[in-house]
Amino acid sequence: MRPNRILLSHGAGGKMTHELIEELFLEAFENEVLRALEDSALLTASGSRVAFTTDSYVVKPLFFPGGDIGRLSVCGTVNDLAMLGARPLGLSASFILEEGFPIEDLKRVIASMREAATEAGVGIVAGDTKVVEQGAAEGLYITTSGVGIVPDGVRIRGDGARPGDLVIVSGPIGDHEIAVLLARGDFSIEGEVRSDCAPLNGLVEEMLRTSLRIHALRDPTRGGLATVLWELAQASGVGIVIEEDSIPMREEVKGVCELLGYDPYYLANEGKLVAILPEEEAPRVLEAMRSHPLGREAAVIGEVREEPKGRVLLKTRIGGHRLLEPLSGEQLPRIC
Amino acid sequence: MRPNRILLSHGAGGKMTHELIEELFLEAFENEVLRALEDSALLTASGSRVAFTTDSYVVKPLFFPGGDIGRLSVCGTVNDLAMLGARPLGLSASFILEEGFPIEDLKRVIASMREAATEAGVGIVAGDTKVVEQGAAEGLYITTSGVGIVPDGVRIRGDGARPGDLVIVSGPIGDHEIAVLLARGDFSIEGEVRSDCAPLNGLVEEMLRTSLRIHALRDPTRGGLATVLWELAQASGVGIVIEEDSIPMREEVKGVCELLGYDPYYLANEGKLVAILPEEEAPRVLEAMRSHPLGREAAVIGEVREEPKGRVLLKTRIGGHRLLEPLSGEQLPRIC
Repeated sequence: MRPNRILLSHGAGGKMTHELIEELFLEAFENEVLRALEDSALLTASGSRVAFTTDSYVVKPLFFPGGDIGRLSVCGTVNDLAMLGARPLGLSASFILEEGFPIEDLKRVIASMREAATEAGVGIVAGDTKVVEQGAAEGLYITTSGVGIVPDGVRIRGDGARPGDLVIVSGPIGDHEIAVLLARGDFSIEGEVRSDCAPLNGLVEEMLRTSLRIHALRDPTRGGLATVLWELAQASGVGIVIEEDSIPMREEVKGVCELLGYDPYYLANEGKLVAILPEEEAPRVLEAMRSHPLGREAAVIGEVREEPKGRVLLKTRIGGHRLLEPLSGEQLPRIC
Repeated sequence: MRPNRILLSHGAGGKMTHELIEELFLEAFENEVLRALEDSALLTASGSRVAFTTDSYVVKPLFFPGGDIGRLSVCGTVNDLAMLGARPLGLSASFILEEGFPIEDLKRVIASMREAATEAGVGIVAGDTKVVEQGAAEGLYITTSGVGIVPDGVRIRGDGARPGDLVIVSGPIGDHEIAVLLARGDFSIEGEVRSDCAPLNGLVEEMLRTSLRIHALRDPTRGGLATVLWELAQASGVGIVIEEDSIPMREEVKGVCELLGYDPYYLANEGKLVAILPEEEAPRVLEAMRSHPLGREAAVIGEVREEPKGRVLLKTRIGGHRLLEPLSGEQLPRIC
């Protein structure tokens, strides 16, 4: 039976988020653009393809190693545009502030947004500020939206994966979620893990300069690598098989996962992408990625097959196969 | 001295909101598009002018006579696009939900968003959902963003008011804020006032079909008629004089204002616009407005003069002049 109230897992980016979107939003807002369920919507304006995306950020704590809610909100939106191959044209930022929030903290967040926007080469061109009473928010929530232009010749879509394609990840997974987890201080674990939070549009441009035949791109944020691959397998009607041994992961992240029982394939990333592309394009694209600061540790982690359709298999170190379902329930709430 | 913490009045849309925007956001995000402080940012994409806007909605209560947070969020964003003369191309909606929020209420809000979007003739093409723990939000906050196209020949800007222009308002002011106020039930006043919450893009299209010489458009939301006229007077470097007797207002709204000491010129509206245009265009535009359901009670309320520059004067019934400053402090928090 479906719950009749909102649960934390409705916001985790996994199974229940999908159900909520399918049953409430898609049904009510019925339109093909939304139905595509891409990271950005694709609109047409006098002949050019305009990408358009939005995300709210409620990360807790607001400041964490490697970033803060401001940096996160800019990178997340730039990355959603980049996952369609779009060049960012402008961002908006809307703030919900809690009465009593320190102006100094707001200044820090804003400075960090500016820095991230500068890295991405985009301006924050529109904004809004609302204030709610003390206790009606936790410090600060930010919603960023973005508009971008998809260059001619680029056709990257979630349903673009084809049997025979290879799967590339741009670097070690799990850093963001583990950094946020440790920053909460709920566990007496000291860690050196920093969030990977970064704007990926430069990396994507580098990739597209090398090959226009990239079939699909996704950034594995909420729900992690497993959920994103599942989404791609579902949308494209293919099977995806990845190899445990080839997936880059920091020793510290592995360690925390083992200690606390987290599954690294479901950990959120904020500066990583998954690319699916024809095998023959892979060597050149991989080389281009590795020459970019955000893709130095890029690796081929698996391949696309005919079967099992709509499923993701993980070949384990000891030779077994594990089915990677989309995230159900949540690992850790409020990671972005 | 400036406060070092966020106050409710920072979100009221008046003086303190302006200071916050000037001192924090404009300085950090420095760019000409944002600096224009229009209701929407104006971007250029392969020759066409793209309007882009965002707003967060934290209205309390979520449901009120004449609308709810969903309808409000769609209309508000459509209206910000329309105030540049833009036709809406697509909207996004991002939800921050409180754990425990009833799914039935969410369904009502979504249905109402769909209805408003249909009225405006635009699709909700992108979205996001985040969930925060019980107590970390009040039910539901929505942030909507919108992208629109400004048709060729249209040039409506906040700095477009010229001495000799007339000032038109599209109908009676204050309905939205009074409807929300009464819906809170803090006062033992029964009222028949319904929010005016409506998408104004159809009305604006009608006006532009009649005349392309509309100089400025604004929707008097937070801060009300007085603050919006002050913004226009500041941006255009002109004086604006309006006549108390000519400003349409419902008797019920007047009554509540007198009873509770609210100043109607600072009350928020969500389905009204202020237009500034050359005197010779006014009769035709007014006729076009009155033939549209949302402009039936449109009226000329004043004129633009050389002096006093950057100021708004109200000619009172008894023949005096009152200076209308931008809203300082807040009248009522969380009206949108």
